Amino acid sequence: MQRPGPDNSVGIVTPQVARFDEPLRLVCGRELPSYELVYETYGELNASRSNAVLVCHALSGHHHAAGYHTEQDRKPGWWNECIGPGKPIDTDRFFVVSLNNLGGCHGSTGPMSLNPGTGKPWGPGFPPIRVRDWVNSQARLADYLGIECWAAVVGGSLGGMQAMRWAIQYPERIRHCIVIAAALKLSAQNLAFNEVARKAIESDPDFNGGNYLSEDRVPATGLELAQQVGRIEYKDEPASGLALARMIGHITYLSDDAMANKFGRELRSGSLDLGDDADVEFQVQSYLRYQGSQFSTNFDANTYVLMTRALDYFDLALEYNNDPVAAFKHARCGFMVISFSTDWRFAPERSREIVDALLAADRPVSYAEIEAKEGHDAFLMPIPRYLDVFSAYMRRVGAPD
Amino acid sequence: MQRPGPDNSVGIVTPQVARFDEPLRLVCGRELPSYELVYETYGELNASRSNAVLVCHALSGHHHAAGYHTEQDRKPGWWNECIGPGKPIDTDRFFVVSLNNLGGCHGSTGPMSLNPGTGKPWGPGFPPIRVRDWVNSQARLADYLGIECWAAVVGGSLGGMQAMRWAIQYPERIRHCIVIAAALKLSAQNLAFNEVARKAIESDPDFNGGNYLSEDRVPATGLELAQQVGRIEYKDEPASGLALARMIGHITYLSDDAMANKFGRELRSGSLDLGDDADVEFQVQSYLRYQGSQFSTNFDANTYVLMTRALDYFDLALEYNNDPVAAFKHARCGFMVISFSTDWRFAPERSREIVDALLAADRPVSYAEIEAKEGHDAFLMPIPRYLDVFSAYMRRVGAPD
Repeated sequence: MQRPGPDNSVGIVTPQVARFDEPLRLVCGRELPSYELVYETYGELNASRSNAVLVCHALSGHHHAAGYHTEQDRKPGWWNECIGPGKPIDTDRFFVVSLNNLGGCHGSTGPMSLNPGTGKPWGPGFPPIRVRDWVNSQARLADYLGIECWAAVVGGSLGGMQAMRWAIQYPERIRHCIVIAAALKLSAQNLAFNEVARKAIESDPDFNGGNYLSEDRVPATGLELAQQVGRIEYKDEPASGLALARMIGHITYLSDDAMANKFGRELRSGSLDLGDDADVEFQVQSYLRYQGSQFSTNFDANTYVLMTRALDYFDLALEYNNDPVAAFKHARCGFMVISFSTDWRFAPERSREIVDALLAADRPVSYAEIEAKEGHDAFLMPIPRYLDVFSAYMRRVGAPD
Repeated sequence: MQRPGPDNSVGIVTPQVARFDEPLRLVCGRELPSYELVYETYGELNASRSNAVLVCHALSGHHHAAGYHTEQDRKPGWWNECIGPGKPIDTDRFFVVSLNNLGGCHGSTGPMSLNPGTGKPWGPGFPPIRVRDWVNSQARLADYLGIECWAAVVGGSLGGMQAMRWAIQYPERIRHCIVIAAALKLSAQNLAFNEVARKAIESDPDFNGGNYLSEDRVPATGLELAQQVGRIEYKDEPASGLALARMIGHITYLSDDAMANKFGRELRSGSLDLGDDADVEFQVQSYLRYQGSQFSTNFDANTYVLMTRALDYFDLALEYNNDPVAAFKHARCGFMVISFSTDWRFAPERSREIVDALLAADRPVSYAEIEAKEGHDAFLMPIPRYLDVFSAYMRRVGAPD
């Protein structure tokens, strides 16, 4: 049993690994002979095994969603605001499972893992992964944990897409589906941003067609060096393709207003008039460079390419004659859909498309559009009304059907 | 006299060069000992020299705004929709001057020019340029052409910023100021996109700190090759930093809707399910790659860095205690401000800030917000209501004061 942390977190948690030796047939037609999934759990599974909640992560997420890994850890899991005692996904009542998805770079089998066929890292040769593959692999994890039916499958952004897939792919194994800041499919603009991000990665000479691991060259910037010499020194370092990709992504996660409030046009150094351009730096530049640089030392470039493709190619209604109503008619669960007013990556309109399709398919659905200035990132933030609405729905999930 | 072209254009035009040997003191504190400006003119200057209109270009623009350079030319100047006989800037009535700005890469003195001090290309050592420097150099061009007062200074986007500067920097030399799809200054989000673009350029190993010209290496993609082998073949070519920069910019010029209408999620090749990810290409991907690739062979990377900085650092009210009303109190001209409903780079709100400041400064101002689905790019498009409103105002410009 976890000991609650100071921020009402689940306390210290330890990742676990589940190994699967039965081959997994993938959407692409290829087969993974075996694979491992790293996951964490928070709270306790009840005797009837009916209180399990699956948390699905977004583009750059992982299994560490709540609590801390060590006593010294300063940074909690990525959804610590929403998972814990008394929080929306209340670990006093739910048994929460959070995994790193297949193809990830935080411990689950992915491009950084050894290809048993060659004894070398998979790298760019790792099979393409679709959201349906993730859901199939998550279903096997449920089997492994003895969970026949999830009380809820929950996710934000790309995580919400996994939750929707669960609802139509395993209708008997999910009682509630919670879809936050997501969409039925990406728009052309969404695709365009991901394309530039991938192109930045692929054009980095250190990327070497994705084969950087076998050459001991990782396409990252010199973050450690930058940290040694102080923040200002690294500003003219070239950015890796992965850092550029993250910078582009990051802009789309924040609202125009949030960036204005956070940075405005404040200068970090230099003058807008006298002197040399190279000495001028806005706060927002410094912030983005830092985000890009940090990300590129903590994430695998091949995984980023793989994850953005899974996101691009997700299209819930594609196999249902492009009719999301037909898709949702396969669902048996209840739905909660949440969007945020300033999210321009997956705007409220995109959530309303989901809601409209669910209503037309005669599925029970609750919808909340939360006023929030934080853009897409709002789904990670402790916005009171968001937490209230989310909590209220989760109380219904907890009640007997 | 130009012969009208088939599309009611100004016909064949020939660029001219003006040389200035009096040193130009720049905002940065440095001095350009001499410089050249390449420009085109359309229409005829009247006897009283009162019908001259200055057209200021945007980030990647140049002097060739209307007509054709040769009989074989298929592509007219960039604002051919708005400049010509019977068009908003009516060359039957106005004498139009369109130049390539200082720091440009289309013939005016800029980073590609030889530094007289070293005999080598200026490259990244070209002095930083501000919008005020452009306006000063344009005033010298006016002197050179014998134009004491512009009937109007007109520009879209960064061009609109030059027009606003004209109004407060040379109030006696401008009768009307036409500001299209512009803003008083960039937002943090605007800055962020430019920052990623510059970072992509600077991180391209071929950029070599901007010193590529002295090494005969130009940071571009293999477009010519791509054109030889057909469009599909170049899709996996790495993109130059400049191509990435253009791709990022391009997304911000188009509206989400315009991209949806133009491309949707249409595939150019491959399947979203079976097969390899490398074979999948959306139409929007192909389009962006082509745009990036083409731009990178037609534009100079140092100029792009210089122009984005001039854009970033533009802040009309900065020297007026951040009060745009105080800034506009120096103006003596009439103003026309135009914005486009789906422009999210410089949204209508940004134009309304200009209008509000002008009203508070008691300046005469007309404002039109045009319904258009084309995003920021709308200012280049033949949108009927836009052309009508623009034409109507220009008729007032033409009338005696």
